Amino acid sequence: MKKIRVGIVGYGNLGKSAEYSIRQFPDLEGAGIFTRRDPRTIKAPTGMPVYAYNQAPNMTDDIDVMLLCSGSRTDLPEQGPEMARLFNTVDGYDTHAKIPAYRKSMDEAARSGSKTAIIAVGWDPGLFSLQRLLGDAILPEGSQETFWGKGVSQGHSDAIRRIAGVKDARQYTIPKREAVEAVKRGDSPKFKTYDKHLRECYVVCEPDADPEKIEMAIKTMPHYFADYETIVHFVTEEELARDHQGLPHSGMVFRYGKTGANSENTHLMTFSLKLDANPDFTAQVLLSCARAVWRLNQDQAYGAKTIFDIPPIYLSHRTPEDAVKNLL
Amino acid sequence: MKKIRVGIVGYGNLGKSAEYSIRQFPDLEGAGIFTRRDPRTIKAPTGMPVYAYNQAPNMTDDIDVMLLCSGSRTDLPEQGPEMARLFNTVDGYDTHAKIPAYRKSMDEAARSGSKTAIIAVGWDPGLFSLQRLLGDAILPEGSQETFWGKGVSQGHSDAIRRIAGVKDARQYTIPKREAVEAVKRGDSPKFKTYDKHLRECYVVCEPDADPEKIEMAIKTMPHYFADYETIVHFVTEEELARDHQGLPHSGMVFRYGKTGANSENTHLMTFSLKLDANPDFTAQVLLSCARAVWRLNQDQAYGAKTIFDIPPIYLSHRTPEDAVKNLL
Repeated sequence: MKKIRVGIVGYGNLGKSAEYSIRQFPDLEGAGIFTRRDPRTIKAPTGMPVYAYNQAPNMTDDIDVMLLCSGSRTDLPEQGPEMARLFNTVDGYDTHAKIPAYRKSMDEAARSGSKTAIIAVGWDPGLFSLQRLLGDAILPEGSQETFWGKGVSQGHSDAIRRIAGVKDARQYTIPKREAVEAVKRGDSPKFKTYDKHLRECYVVCEPDADPEKIEMAIKTMPHYFADYETIVHFVTEEELARDHQGLPHSGMVFRYGKTGANSENTHLMTFSLKLDANPDFTAQVLLSCARAVWRLNQDQAYGAKTIFDIPPIYLSHRTPEDAVKNLL
Repeated sequence: MKKIRVGIVGYGNLGKSAEYSIRQFPDLEGAGIFTRRDPRTIKAPTGMPVYAYNQAPNMTDDIDVMLLCSGSRTDLPEQGPEMARLFNTVDGYDTHAKIPAYRKSMDEAARSGSKTAIIAVGWDPGLFSLQRLLGDAILPEGSQETFWGKGVSQGHSDAIRRIAGVKDARQYTIPKREAVEAVKRGDSPKFKTYDKHLRECYVVCEPDADPEKIEMAIKTMPHYFADYETIVHFVTEEELARDHQGLPHSGMVFRYGKTGANSENTHLMTFSLKLDANPDFTAQVLLSCARAVWRLNQDQAYGAKTIFDIPPIYLSHRTPEDAVKNLL
């Protein structure tokens, strides 16, 4: 069987994970890495060829699916539609509030070239979204909650690094135990932001910096920290390198619901993830979607799709008969 | 909007749950209960009309989807294809080993009448199967385990009741804690049947029965108990009625996998259910599939489908835009 040829656009954490992960997918092969840096400066450890981003339009005959591994803030809104006009694409666009607008622009771009674009996959949005949809569909008389962490938030770590006097930082998002327990019990309380998660920060200062001022700057930073319980630890560069190098993450989606003649029976659906390396797991999800986007495109299902639109069997390397026999 | 008219075939535990549950689904309406008993002997508490099973063929204009709520052992293999020739159907066929054959016979029946049949849905097979497929697709370099319980196994309870001298019985399937902990740690041991679950039985004897003989008959019963650690408690009829009336169940699906240049990163996906009333929850899953089967049929996707074939959005009452905005 001919393998699906996958290109990787963007060679940051996610792109690097995808390069290794693709070896686990028997029906996919890595066709190249596309970067806006000088491709001669990058040596891919698996030997995958590296091309300049603007060579991609000349390679539409060589690539079946482009995995868009760039950032959601500035890269994907531009690169996504550029690529979706020419290739089937998969991306992990994760700015929740802007997904409807991004979906529209990807839908128009993909349809213009009879291509298919799976957008906003990974674990949240992605697998967690799927669990929220299942809970909402199956237990309509119910409530749901998503918790993130314990894990590293790269956006919040970056925000701390931008404070004057901070040399490096790592921020962990941590669900509050009492909140999780309340949801498991089915109390379905109306949580405030402060109630659900706390934020723990490990900060390395510049030699002449004032830790008290930095701590205040973190704890009062609007949107990022002001509404949360925030704990700040000052550590040395060596401690940060030793204890906080990885990008672990985790999370939980709960759906609590009631049934029966008088709503006397309760039910709890729980989905949880515990990940050593957030970019690796996200890459694995994107790669399973690479085969799905190829199949959807073969079906002439053009335009932008989300995880809600994908028949699950399309994510699997198994035939329907094999999956029914061994997994159903 | 016109509601989808749902008929309920079979009025045991599952059919009775479906009758109540349908009130939670704004786009579905209960069109009638179909029974092989004399319909005049049944009064449905919600006032849903009750018909004889063999009236169904005259009502193809009145029913959009038939929910098949009969047993898998003898009823569904016969009723399933009979109904699937005439109606879109949803069933919870759960004899795992025979699903491929059942799927074939349902596929032929449904295609002969340009109908669609969603088979083998509920939680296992059903939601658990979906999680197994996702884990298998996303973390191919991994291992998975399903645990059932703590919960009542109706098949095992029935098996005990068939022993001479037993008046009534309830059997709980219970995952062994050490096995669950080993899977969470990623030990992926090769479990024997004995290692994963234990079976706890509450038995009411006839007045003249010999408890020792009954205990021996249970513990040595092939297939059902002989391969398990089995605990037998003798209780009074009153104790059984007081403490063991419900049909609670639960379960967990784990997928453990590795990623990275040298498989150095590990990941754990967990899905779990905790259900007060097994038939209620199963009915909720079947009802969300009733709208999905109707939509698949509108798409002219005829024949037998499993949960692997259903685009998740078809399970939801929400429009794609609404789901993207609020659940993605």
